[in-house]
Amino acid sequence: MTSFCLSVILTTARAALLTGRLPVRNGFYTTNAHARNAYTPQEIVGGISKDEILLPQMLKKKGYVSKIVGKWHLGHRPQYLPLENGFDEWFGAPNCHFGPYNSSIRPNIPVYNNSEMLGRYYEEFKINRKTGESNLTEIYLMEGLDFILRQTKARRPFFLYWAPDATHAPVYASKRFLGKSQRGRYGDAVMELDYSIGQILSWLQTLGIDNNTFVFFTSDNGAALISAPNEGGSNGPFLCGKQTTFEGGMREPAIAWWPGHIKEGTVSFQLANVMDLFTTSLALAGVSPPNDRTLDGLDLTPVLLNRSHTLQNRPIFYYRGNELMAVRLGQYKAHYWTWSNSWEEFKKGINFCPGQEIPDVTTHEQKEHTMQPIIFHLGRDPGEKFPISVLSKEYHDVLSRISPVVEQHKKTLVPGAPQLNMCDVAVMNWAPAGCEKLGKCLKVPKSEPWKCDWPH
Amino acid sequence: MTSFCLSVILTTARAALLTGRLPVRNGFYTTNAHARNAYTPQEIVGGISKDEILLPQMLKKKGYVSKIVGKWHLGHRPQYLPLENGFDEWFGAPNCHFGPYNSSIRPNIPVYNNSEMLGRYYEEFKINRKTGESNLTEIYLMEGLDFILRQTKARRPFFLYWAPDATHAPVYASKRFLGKSQRGRYGDAVMELDYSIGQILSWLQTLGIDNNTFVFFTSDNGAALISAPNEGGSNGPFLCGKQTTFEGGMREPAIAWWPGHIKEGTVSFQLANVMDLFTTSLALAGVSPPNDRTLDGLDLTPVLLNRSHTLQNRPIFYYRGNELMAVRLGQYKAHYWTWSNSWEEFKKGINFCPGQEIPDVTTHEQKEHTMQPIIFHLGRDPGEKFPISVLSKEYHDVLSRISPVVEQHKKTLVPGAPQLNMCDVAVMNWAPAGCEKLGKCLKVPKSEPWKCDWPH
Repeated sequence: MTSFCLSVILTTARAALLTGRLPVRNGFYTTNAHARNAYTPQEIVGGISKDEILLPQMLKKKGYVSKIVGKWHLGHRPQYLPLENGFDEWFGAPNCHFGPYNSSIRPNIPVYNNSEMLGRYYEEFKINRKTGESNLTEIYLMEGLDFILRQTKARRPFFLYWAPDATHAPVYASKRFLGKSQRGRYGDAVMELDYSIGQILSWLQTLGIDNNTFVFFTSDNGAALISAPNEGGSNGPFLCGKQTTFEGGMREPAIAWWPGHIKEGTVSFQLANVMDLFTTSLALAGVSPPNDRTLDGLDLTPVLLNRSHTLQNRPIFYYRGNELMAVRLGQYKAHYWTWSNSWEEFKKGINFCPGQEIPDVTTHEQKEHTMQPIIFHLGRDPGEKFPISVLSKEYHDVLSRISPVVEQHKKTLVPGAPQLNMCDVAVMNWAPAGCEKLGKCLKVPKSEPWKCDWPH
Repeated sequence: MTSFCLSVILTTARAALLTGRLPVRNGFYTTNAHARNAYTPQEIVGGISKDEILLPQMLKKKGYVSKIVGKWHLGHRPQYLPLENGFDEWFGAPNCHFGPYNSSIRPNIPVYNNSEMLGRYYEEFKINRKTGESNLTEIYLMEGLDFILRQTKARRPFFLYWAPDATHAPVYASKRFLGKSQRGRYGDAVMELDYSIGQILSWLQTLGIDNNTFVFFTSDNGAALISAPNEGGSNGPFLCGKQTTFEGGMREPAIAWWPGHIKEGTVSFQLANVMDLFTTSLALAGVSPPNDRTLDGLDLTPVLLNRSHTLQNRPIFYYRGNELMAVRLGQYKAHYWTWSNSWEEFKKGINFCPGQEIPDVTTHEQKEHTMQPIIFHLGRDPGEKFPISVLSKEYHDVLSRISPVVEQHKKTLVPGAPQLNMCDVAVMNWAPAGCEKLGKCLKVPKSEPWKCDWPH
């Protein structure tokens, strides 16, 4: 019996994690605006497709009880919510904690306990935009610990997907963490997150189930430099941040913890992504992965359990919408399209690469390099600052290895129906299930669907 | 009895470490060209002044035997060499391992064993510029281990200043490390350095003196981005690199190791600099610091030994030549002058901030901001990318705290005689002591001194 705690913090990464498949396959993308970022605000009509198989659905075959604590972000309309998609329990919200809103124009985001709302952000669930105080992370921690305790007592294998909203802007932390870090409010939020993960780990030890609980910690995107420095982090040496397909947007730290199975303090150079968590979790639970669809995730157990040092030289595909922006193979990354954001946005002061400017790379027009991709060696040049000369032997050697991989990928790709194309004010969280009991139902406006427009 | 191993890898930092004083006080600076970087090539006429007191001279009062292994860089003329300035032993070179040179125009740098040369770089001490192979770090390691062994056997307290040339460009590593890292030749050199430090630590353990040997590891400047990616590192989130007074040029990782005294795995937020090693080492050895001069180094022992969490809110002064470029106080840093390098140099492709550009900060003219310093909060903004608005209350509060500190510093500063102003081909390493025995003396050209010109 191996239980799981997975903790992550973009929509697309969440869908990828739970399905083991690229967003372009599972539907979490848009075809509206070429290479625009899409996400899941409450105007989005779509959500996770019934054709997709989610991790908790697979784990159920072996008796696992599954709970998500925190942000769902795979669609907020009733059919898309967690309990309709394999989870047994949910405490959290369907969308981001933006707000507070004027309820006649836009509802505040509801917080659910399982299939019914308990309140809304900024109303029953306080977030003080001025002081940055909110005990949300603390609430989410308690919900996680309680779930673990109940399953342990019942001797049931479990899957906890602990997905707190922190450190997303607007940044908040509980009172006892405010002002405590060396890094302003953002640092306080990181500190509380770090503390909370620590509490989960020691709870597993206290309950004596640390040796049979696999814990994986990671993030779903790089630091949002657009919010830095007050409400965003740093991506260290990596280029740009969240909302881009540069390393600062896509590369993440990750920690796997499983006392007695994974040797502490070891570092792996295996290239991995969140989709691997789907396949890896199934392997650990002894469940065969679905064989009627393409899975992008690999089983990482040989690497994690130290039976092998590396898996195959697997490619990583970097998408925006349905456009393949870049491909990584081994230490090399080839950019087929580049752009950070539009000149209009950039001139308004929205900058995903503050202080960074690489000619022909951090472009403000959507620039195609298909005939001659820009290639970086991420080992020597983790910051994507020194393109390899197209005249060099190295460039040609690398391209001749990457090109067939890209060709094969494009030839065999079957895109899913795009879920993030249509918007409608009528689908917003006006009257979530349970609102009647609380007297918190708002009037649903007339449906007027439009093609969503993405600024970035 | 506490012995010391100090390991560092710029001239000015080396002089500062060994004297506990700012370069502008100890003479390791130039007044020739406003705010230009100066260093110690073999044309330099000057060297460490006899008026300075060096760490090994102070430690001798308590019977310490001192050795420097590696690069000296405090002057290469006979009177400036290590054995004339308090060290009992030396194995290494007076200058950087640039080359190979045509000996009729410029001599290759000599490698000394104590007071006599043993050979020269690229001649007896091989460095293959093509393959990057050289066993210099290995030789320096052996010299260090041998010194430790001899002092341990003789039960003498010792001070080992282990200052390898690696990872300075041209980058080299020993054969067994070449091609072994994920980070090209630079990574191989780092790997060998890391391995070597490990060997020193386990040697101390093997000899049973780990509990009474204080080991400190740090670097004397940030990664040389000008040499990246093939021959230089990354400064993570920090701005620019070596040769600048931005954080990428000045901030360094540092590790203190002393089993039984310093708790392993602890992290300190104390602001410190290499000059503190002078004062700290004296405190550990029980030697009173010189009281006839200003010392900039603080005694870090309260922090290191965990008797106090922080020392006073001490300022850090960032100089170029005799110009005070910036001041750090707590989490704040105020820039009074900015410049990365000149437009001429920059247009030739010499870039100390590749991929980074902060308007008004990474300037290519020497820009004065004395009337309104540019201020960053390095906690929220470690990359110096978001200047604090001069209209904010925070700006005015910070400036009112920093201004009196700067005023006091300037008012009381007594600059030393600048050692890096004059150059002369006649002072180069044509005929170092010991060259006769080896038949390696070169003809000394006519003396033609000139005021040194610094490109950056």
